[in-house]
Amino acid sequence: MIVVMKVGSPEAEINRVSEELHTWGLTPEKIVGKHKVVIGLVGETADLDPLQIQEVSPWIEQVLRVEQPYKRASRQYRHGEASEVVVNTPDGPVTIGENHPLVVVAGPCSVENEEMIVETAQRVKAAGAKFLRGGAYKPRTSPYAFQGHGESALELLAAAREASGLGIITEVMDSADLDKIVEVADVVQVGARNMQNFSLLKKVGAQPKPVLLKRGMSATIEEWLMAAEYILAAGNPNVILCERGIRNFDRQYTRNTLDISVVPVLRNLTHLPIMIDPSHGTGWAAYVPSMSMAAIAAGCDSLMIEVHPNPKKALSDGPQSLTPEAFDQLMQELAVIGKAVGRWPQPAVALA
Amino acid sequence: MIVVMKVGSPEAEINRVSEELHTWGLTPEKIVGKHKVVIGLVGETADLDPLQIQEVSPWIEQVLRVEQPYKRASRQYRHGEASEVVVNTPDGPVTIGENHPLVVVAGPCSVENEEMIVETAQRVKAAGAKFLRGGAYKPRTSPYAFQGHGESALELLAAAREASGLGIITEVMDSADLDKIVEVADVVQVGARNMQNFSLLKKVGAQPKPVLLKRGMSATIEEWLMAAEYILAAGNPNVILCERGIRNFDRQYTRNTLDISVVPVLRNLTHLPIMIDPSHGTGWAAYVPSMSMAAIAAGCDSLMIEVHPNPKKALSDGPQSLTPEAFDQLMQELAVIGKAVGRWPQPAVALA
Amino acid sequence: MIVVMKVGSPEAEINRVSEELHTWGLTPEKIVGKHKVVIGLVGETADLDPLQIQEVSPWIEQVLRVEQPYKRASRQYRHGEASEVVVNTPDGPVTIGENHPLVVVAGPCSVENEEMIVETAQRVKAAGAKFLRGGAYKPRTSPYAFQGHGESALELLAAAREASGLGIITEVMDSADLDKIVEVADVVQVGARNMQNFSLLKKVGAQPKPVLLKRGMSATIEEWLMAAEYILAAGNPNVILCERGIRNFDRQYTRNTLDISVVPVLRNLTHLPIMIDPSHGTGWAAYVPSMSMAAIAAGCDSLMIEVHPNPKKALSDGPQSLTPEAFDQLMQELAVIGKAVGRWPQPAVALA
Amino acid sequence: MIVVMKVGSPEAEINRVSEELHTWGLTPEKIVGKHKVVIGLVGETADLDPLQIQEVSPWIEQVLRVEQPYKRASRQYRHGEASEVVVNTPDGPVTIGENHPLVVVAGPCSVENEEMIVETAQRVKAAGAKFLRGGAYKPRTSPYAFQGHGESALELLAAAREASGLGIITEVMDSADLDKIVEVADVVQVGARNMQNFSLLKKVGAQPKPVLLKRGMSATIEEWLMAAEYILAAGNPNVILCERGIRNFDRQYTRNTLDISVVPVLRNLTHLPIMIDPSHGTGWAAYVPSMSMAAIAAGCDSLMIEVHPNPKKALSDGPQSLTPEAFDQLMQELAVIGKAVGRWPQPAVALA
Repeated sequence: MIVVMKVGSPEAEINRVSEELHTWGLTPEKIVGKHKVVIGLVGETADLDPLQIQEVSPWIEQVLRVEQPYKRASRQYRHGEASEVVVNTPDGPVTIGENHPLVVVAGPCSVENEEMIVETAQRVKAAGAKFLRGGAYKPRTSPYAFQGHGESALELLAAAREASGLGIITEVMDSADLDKIVEVADVVQVGARNMQNFSLLKKVGAQPKPVLLKRGMSATIEEWLMAAEYILAAGNPNVILCERGIRNFDRQYTRNTLDISVVPVLRNLTHLPIMIDPSHGTGWAAYVPSMSMAAIAAGCDSLMIEVHPNPKKALSDGPQSLTPEAFDQLMQELAVIGKAVGRWPQPAVALA
Repeated sequence: MIVVMKVGSPEAEINRVSEELHTWGLTPEKIVGKHKVVIGLVGETADLDPLQIQEVSPWIEQVLRVEQPYKRASRQYRHGEASEVVVNTPDGPVTIGENHPLVVVAGPCSVENEEMIVETAQRVKAAGAKFLRGGAYKPRTSPYAFQGHGESALELLAAAREASGLGIITEVMDSADLDKIVEVADVVQVGARNMQNFSLLKKVGAQPKPVLLKRGMSATIEEWLMAAEYILAAGNPNVILCERGIRNFDRQYTRNTLDISVVPVLRNLTHLPIMIDPSHGTGWAAYVPSMSMAAIAAGCDSLMIEVHPNPKKALSDGPQSLTPEAFDQLMQELAVIGKAVGRWPQPAVALA
Repeated sequence: MIVVMKVGSPEAEINRVSEELHTWGLTPEKIVGKHKVVIGLVGETADLDPLQIQEVSPWIEQVLRVEQPYKRASRQYRHGEASEVVVNTPDGPVTIGENHPLVVVAGPCSVENEEMIVETAQRVKAAGAKFLRGGAYKPRTSPYAFQGHGESALELLAAAREASGLGIITEVMDSADLDKIVEVADVVQVGARNMQNFSLLKKVGAQPKPVLLKRGMSATIEEWLMAAEYILAAGNPNVILCERGIRNFDRQYTRNTLDISVVPVLRNLTHLPIMIDPSHGTGWAAYVPSMSMAAIAAGCDSLMIEVHPNPKKALSDGPQSLTPEAFDQLMQELAVIGKAVGRWPQPAVALA
Repeated sequence: MIVVMKVGSPEAEINRVSEELHTWGLTPEKIVGKHKVVIGLVGETADLDPLQIQEVSPWIEQVLRVEQPYKRASRQYRHGEASEVVVNTPDGPVTIGENHPLVVVAGPCSVENEEMIVETAQRVKAAGAKFLRGGAYKPRTSPYAFQGHGESALELLAAAREASGLGIITEVMDSADLDKIVEVADVVQVGARNMQNFSLLKKVGAQPKPVLLKRGMSATIEEWLMAAEYILAAGNPNVILCERGIRNFDRQYTRNTLDISVVPVLRNLTHLPIMIDPSHGTGWAAYVPSMSMAAIAAGCDSLMIEVHPNPKKALSDGPQSLTPEAFDQLMQELAVIGKAVGRWPQPAVALA
């Protein structure tokens, strides 16, 4: 349920309403929107009468039931207003959300060595990226495949962070590694294969860094939002949803089917920011530019693109990685679309 | 196999090579590209030695084997060059293809009566559409649902064609109706459910009007191109491929999953023009603008959008139809993206 | 809607009720069950009040609304009773249905020549099959693949029918061929790719031979039953549903995913007989025995199994065809399960 | 690679060969089959010449390369021989495998209280089950749904184990709970949502209890076997594969699509025992009997069936749970099929 407060409600009154509802056994959450304050209520609300709540204060404008099974993640929970995730990076805060410029995340699948990760960071930053992605712990189908350099790779990410000023996004696979990852990462990623690893979701929900939640390979949109709800319910309001391709019957020409239609659907259902990963989504570098442009035109808030200094020698996911040169070129193409839809950062990319 | 002729090959020599190869039991097809002429060869080529063909003429530059199972539909068959489909409409020829401006097709799911179809035609034309879509024969899941007005609807389409100057695209479900449809339609549509109705494919391949081939609900890209190959092999070179959403595990929020990633994949595999239908692809009018913009940014050649004067009262597919007003608005939004990627018709839409 | 007549209702009264309801603009169909007569009503029933119908006769026990969108195909339409399809074969009538022994259909994918089809017919009959399958017209993904011998193959099927006494099942792809096929076939097959070729469904519904309706590759159960409804609504009550594998994300080890769980689901939803085709369902002869046994144990009414005298040289679908020897062996294994569940024909197979 | 030793090879020689190959940097594993001993080799074998290994001992019969990416899980790794998993239960060892009677696992989705779990254990044991299933930690789509009673439920499972003599199978969701679970469970379950939680797979691979590995919702067979390989590679040879339904386009009448065709496919690819879970596979109790019978006929080694004393009041998965009475009845029906295929335990079920 949500309690919509009238415009101009005194803060003391808002707090009083929250406290009153807290005594009813509910968990009130104050959401400050552009114009109004909304109090979100989670708990045993099924038997509550909205009229009863209405009587708590004359400053209450409306009491509305959230129909969706995902409460905190629903757009309704914020009375229609988008949320935004502000990430503190060495270069300052970066905001990801519907009312902000597009944020580009770039970098290799895996952190391979210091030179490659620092160089990549500097290159993608010069081209306009705000975050460096790079895997220290890698979920690999085969136990005999390269599993990531683990803890030592975290140090290299820290070095790349310092050298470039970029924020760091890296994946957590095991909650035992979470503390170490949180020390380095500005955003903690939960991968597609762990989207319904509920233990892990609860733990990333209980730490302070924003969380990037990739969609599971065959997760429905509702399951995905429910996974986000696990994180939100554990106390972390900063969740970014990332589409990375779903599984389909045709895998001959693409690794996955990038479901760009999630952009308007999610926009309608949730207030959370939306990222698209065309690299995993298609599996082939040649298809990344076209799909990146489509994603921006569809209205996504952020893009995640794999860039590797030498894709042919990459320890993982080489075929879907762009070279730094191709990434430079891509950013210039993306600027055209980004500007057309009013989502490109000002001032324009240094290279342009 | 294809035989690439040297630049400047005399036409007589090209014809001589074709005739010679015809005597070998092959079916040569002359494809005139921008710079070069290519002779496509279909038939029992598995045991042929390219060197043997090479010896037929000193004007032969190269003999290449087409690796794909779809021969005529493959990009390789035209030595990498895109084809284009030129459609004669009352307002003059309209060209659909990679090197031409985006072509918008609009109209209702079904032709309901003269007033609605003529009015819709005039409205969508004013907004910039080049073709009117409208079903006379409707494939419906239920035998008890409205099946289209059939032959009488064809007359109404003819009236709308005359009144608006737009080209007409309408679906054939039964080859017994083909002659009547061909009299009215400028482009004959084969629907998703008939994509592998091979008898019908052969028959639309043997008539002169261009064919719009919708992708089957769970057709792989290879199966789709093989379906196109049936039409091409039957003698009709004018095939447009139309993605309209594929079937997936999540059907709660969209009717289908619009697979926009086919745009770069098809571009790579085939020379045929590519259309996207976001109306069927998503099933909801609210998602059509976002997906239309994405489709243009991805690089499609044409869009098919459902427009109905009164979607709430539509006899079929109301929820996915735009009102004429919404379509006007959409065309202005599309112009922004279309111009950004250099695919918007000149002069710009009258309304803009 | 259905009108359930009381036990012992006089036939004249049943007819009177039917006639009365006919004057109301409905299409009554008399269904004679084991104990009761039910009058099925199709038409504009949405606004009808069951009580109003009840008053037509004191012999009416109950008036029930059929909730499913498929009316005639629903189990409810026959008040819970299974239907059966009786096919007249040279050897006498063969009944396919829930309360009858399992019926085995066997034969090659395509009719290749007289010797192979006659020999196969005799071999599979000796092993216990009641029907010979064999394609005269073949739906092939590629226009360059063998398309079946067409009309001449129909003559060979007629010869095999006469030589063996087996009933013939063969596929119609084009309604133009229907008359010729109906002359030879005891059951007309509509293939997976044409499951929603509604024109063809209407035509097979208007001819007298029973129809075998294969499930489309990604057809939902509801769509499949609606396709059956097209045939039933066109006047042909003899429809057999055949599951032949659905499309899925994993096609590495099987051609399709044989959905055996349709057996109990269909049993619950429809009165129509159920056939399983493990040959197309898996695509590999090695998996046919295990899946045939599972299908019988699940409760199917009929099996369709591909048998070819020399699978390695088959013009189509060799990898999924059993040799006649393997089929002999399989029938003995199936007899064990068939007897255990009380569905094996008496007297047992000659070979057993 | 595998090294097949000749029949009658002296144990000292087998050990010598293993030690020699160990010095080459490989990890030899001795597999004692019915007739022969095979030495499995995992490691950098790509560049090894089989002939070179052959020369290590005259007792070596053959050196074969394992072609599959899953090495230890492949059937080839045991030279075609099935493995078996022996579980020590209070009532003695129970063996699950291709050459042993069918093993039935039964019990509720979640452990709700002592009375219900003890009663269910006694009831399902009386009907012939060898294991009790019951969730202490439950993976639930919603954070607001019942999450299992956790540690206290483990104590109740221990009580049920003691009271009934049944082995216990329960799920681990978080490696932090593994030690506590291993104290009680005879078999540790990894659920579908964690099938590619590689950290968890490594940890269950490093503990001594057998592991039940459920197939992920859209996991390919190869991915599933690679997940098993993670466990085997971590040192635990006792893995049981459990199919529980895959995700598909039609979810109207069943929760998942139970893929019974995995039985012959897995039998061909792997030596590991195969379990089928028709309760999750279909989602509806009414479909469990038919699918259980099909699974046995297909050749599975074990069945997992949900049984709850009062399905309507179950805290989770009520619709797919059988009552104890329905389970008694089912076991008698299963005995018919089980005996027909020679897989039913002797002496027959007490109730029969």
